[in-house]
Amino acid sequence: METSPASAFIPAERILMGPGPSPVPQRVLRALGAPTLGHLDPQYLAIMDRTCAMLREVFRTKNALTFPVSGTGMAGMECVAVNLIEPGDEVIVGVNGVFGTRMKDVMERCGAKVHALEATWGDVISLEQLKAALDAHPQVKLVGIVHAETSTGALQPLAGFAELVHSRGALLAIDAVTSLGGHELRVDDWGIDAIYSGTQKCLSCPPGLSPVSFGERALAKMDARKTKVQSWYLDVSMLRKYYTGGGGGGRVYHHTAPINMTYALHEALMIVLEEGLDARIERHAQMHRRLRAGLEAMGLTYIPKHSLHSLNCISIPAGADDAKVRRRLLEEYGIEIGAGLGPMAGKAWRIGLMGHGATVRNVDLVLTALKNVLA
Amino acid sequence: METSPASAFIPAERILMGPGPSPVPQRVLRALGAPTLGHLDPQYLAIMDRTCAMLREVFRTKNALTFPVSGTGMAGMECVAVNLIEPGDEVIVGVNGVFGTRMKDVMERCGAKVHALEATWGDVISLEQLKAALDAHPQVKLVGIVHAETSTGALQPLAGFAELVHSRGALLAIDAVTSLGGHELRVDDWGIDAIYSGTQKCLSCPPGLSPVSFGERALAKMDARKTKVQSWYLDVSMLRKYYTGGGGGGRVYHHTAPINMTYALHEALMIVLEEGLDARIERHAQMHRRLRAGLEAMGLTYIPKHSLHSLNCISIPAGADDAKVRRRLLEEYGIEIGAGLGPMAGKAWRIGLMGHGATVRNVDLVLTALKNVLA
Repeated sequence: METSPASAFIPAERILMGPGPSPVPQRVLRALGAPTLGHLDPQYLAIMDRTCAMLREVFRTKNALTFPVSGTGMAGMECVAVNLIEPGDEVIVGVNGVFGTRMKDVMERCGAKVHALEATWGDVISLEQLKAALDAHPQVKLVGIVHAETSTGALQPLAGFAELVHSRGALLAIDAVTSLGGHELRVDDWGIDAIYSGTQKCLSCPPGLSPVSFGERALAKMDARKTKVQSWYLDVSMLRKYYTGGGGGGRVYHHTAPINMTYALHEALMIVLEEGLDARIERHAQMHRRLRAGLEAMGLTYIPKHSLHSLNCISIPAGADDAKVRRRLLEEYGIEIGAGLGPMAGKAWRIGLMGHGATVRNVDLVLTALKNVLA
Repeated sequence: METSPASAFIPAERILMGPGPSPVPQRVLRALGAPTLGHLDPQYLAIMDRTCAMLREVFRTKNALTFPVSGTGMAGMECVAVNLIEPGDEVIVGVNGVFGTRMKDVMERCGAKVHALEATWGDVISLEQLKAALDAHPQVKLVGIVHAETSTGALQPLAGFAELVHSRGALLAIDAVTSLGGHELRVDDWGIDAIYSGTQKCLSCPPGLSPVSFGERALAKMDARKTKVQSWYLDVSMLRKYYTGGGGGGRVYHHTAPINMTYALHEALMIVLEEGLDARIERHAQMHRRLRAGLEAMGLTYIPKHSLHSLNCISIPAGADDAKVRRRLLEEYGIEIGAGLGPMAGKAWRIGLMGHGATVRNVDLVLTALKNVLA
């Protein structure tokens, strides 16, 4: 039964410089492959508690309800939406890329009446624009904004957003899939009420979990719901009894969590905190500047005005064959970069510098490889 | 950044004999820890295709739409429900344990009008009962039945179910979380229209994915939907474009799949097929009989009339301290068995013999350990 290891799948050792997943450190892969425990084993509950505690540090929040949803990033988006929206609720969603577009779709599926706050792809949403939308729609209960738009590489400034949204009695929900652990992000200081991310970006853990955090205002809205959450799997009123023992009655089994993925996230978060969150964010900034200088020296141009450090979205130069260039990078160098998504397909490349992948070695290699392949 | 391996979490090497997760072979853990690929990497798409092909063999189906949902077993249940139910649909659900109760809840959250087909916990649903319910509710569009009720250990016979359900123009959806890979289960021969399972039971893979399969009738119902699927994450109309390239337009990115979990499932399925599905099912039957003989010789009694082989649900003997016995098994032997769930809490123990864990070694050890701890 265990005699044919030769038949195992041996994946190539890619250098992952696309929009995620990012390169995973050996330590994290080793943690992932540790023996599986039961999801109610005291040892597992302990490592899960430590994982949630580290997530609080990385989100810079004291929110008790901070945990990894048992799915990838889009499950986190859906978790925030299904718990905070009731049918008929008016919401505003910033739509300036694929993930804002998806957030609108996800929230509409929850029965929300969504007012799209649109900006050109690559641009960001301004505070004035948001104020005008809130003036026009005074019944809005939730504002959803993508902090790091992975499809365009735009970094959304959030200064003043929470104050404005709260002054209208609404909640602020943030997509931080591509910023958590790689960009300045302060859940408590910035007044964010609900936030979700992914493990496979700046945290450099394989995909499979989606860290989320909910603040007091969000909990109050959930507690006041008149309708059941439409998703059983993502229903926070039950999940919180497992993850925090909250809501009375102590720790209660809900579903079987992805045990080994929790080991991996635990190890990945230890690495983040050993490096130090500030140092890690600064490293992402430095590597972005190094890559940007190199790309611009080659005549390549960035699409967004406010670029993410973790994701660099550039225009495909005239005459270059999109698919061929990416294939040659993959086949000759083992480097994965991302294609353009949605309306940017065929027009953009996306170079990720995330977590373990944001290194001088990778930056200089991808610049050299691109030079050779584009020559 | 990678210099402190001493801080890694080292889980105890438990012998997992509860209701899942089950023991994971070294080969599978090793596969899990292989380097992460991108979810659109040709190598990843290839291993995912092979994984889906092996899932078809294990489900004994030719259904093109057979794939692992990116979540644990309950995500599979929710995937089947959200895709096959539209608000107002009448459905029948067999409720004779925790998972039937959950299926009712999940389907109600989809807007279904659920007629519960109840049986005493530990009993099963009879064909006559189902016929009476279909007679009473001729508008029913879907019948949901749990094949292996993990909370009671009951094995639900399904002979004649599909014929009856189809004769009324309804679909048959089956929960096979604890039977797939350990019990006789024939999706095509038995006429099952939709089915979901988990990786962490008889397949002996860590939790994190939920294999599902949809047949032609189910696809036709989905294609005829008048409403959007309420879950974006689980919307099969989009997922099928990624998993099968179906629906036109070739393979389309949907969400980031849990890459490394796919490696693990791939390896776990290889092990299943190397052993042979029939041999594996027979091994589960033999180990169940060996355990049962030992337990009954100790005066312990089974709760369900039709017991699963993979999960053995017994009454806690008079005078035994539930929590203390389980704690001693865990601390002295490293053996995890399951507590009773729901109304069976404090009344039942659940001993899993699943996949890699269904061995003479484990059976004899748990019998010896129980004898000592109960003495």
